[in-house]
Amino acid sequence: MNMRIPILKLNEILIVSLQWELDDQTAIQFQEDLLKKLHDTSAKGVVIDLTPIDFIDSFIAKVLGDVISMSGLMGAKVVITGIQPAVAITLIELGIRLENVMTALDLENGMDKLQQELEA
Amino acid sequence: MNMRIPILKLNEILIVSLQWELDDQTAIQFQEDLLKKLHDTSAKGVVIDLTPIDFIDSFIAKVLGDVISMSGLMGAKVVITGIQPAVAITLIELGIRLENVMTALDLENGMDKLQQELEA
Repeated sequence: MNMRIPILKLNEILIVSLQWELDDQTAIQFQEDLLKKLHDTSAKGVVIDLTPIDFIDSFIAKVLGDVISMSGLMGAKVVITGIQPAVAITLIELGIRLENVMTALDLENGMDKLQQELEA
Repeated sequence: MNMRIPILKLNEILIVSLQWELDDQTAIQFQEDLLKKLHDTSAKGVVIDLTPIDFIDSFIAKVLGDVISMSGLMGAKVVITGIQPAVAITLIELGIRLENVMTALDLENGMDKLQQELEA
């Protein structure tokens, strides 16, 4: 079974909703797919919703940090939404500070924030 | 591994993007999840994007037809987007005519169509 994370495109924004803890291979595939889709669609922003995720391990946290940095390099603004307490703790403990990243409570707020940012 | 289809909520609309051919169990789980989320969120519309799907078997086609009818019963308008030729053929051959359903070429067009319909 091909376990790909769905990446939706809505206007200039890519939307990713993670629903389960990723295994390593799916995470790498996701990184590849997202960057390729950014390139193919010339999207200007990415929203990654982590709402259902209540735990991430260090490998996935690193991939997530990398994806965000890489998307930034490719010219896209990134918003992460729905970070749960345990996920926030893991990210900070691993030194993944997400400094240039916007965050928001949920997908809808994240989309609004990103829209405003893109229009600014 | 919990193979759930992600269901995103954006304003009053639920968005589902099918990325791979569903197995029977995932399809049933999807039906359950979507109806539950419709109930929980009081969403007024659903967009189901089938763009990456180039084949569906009769069971999945039936589940899809059922989900659409059930969503309608629950008061939601449904738009199906990205139906490929082989999928259209399967649906019609099985007598699943999707008569009360809007269709659109892609997710963006489907969202626009649904927004207009909901505002009308």
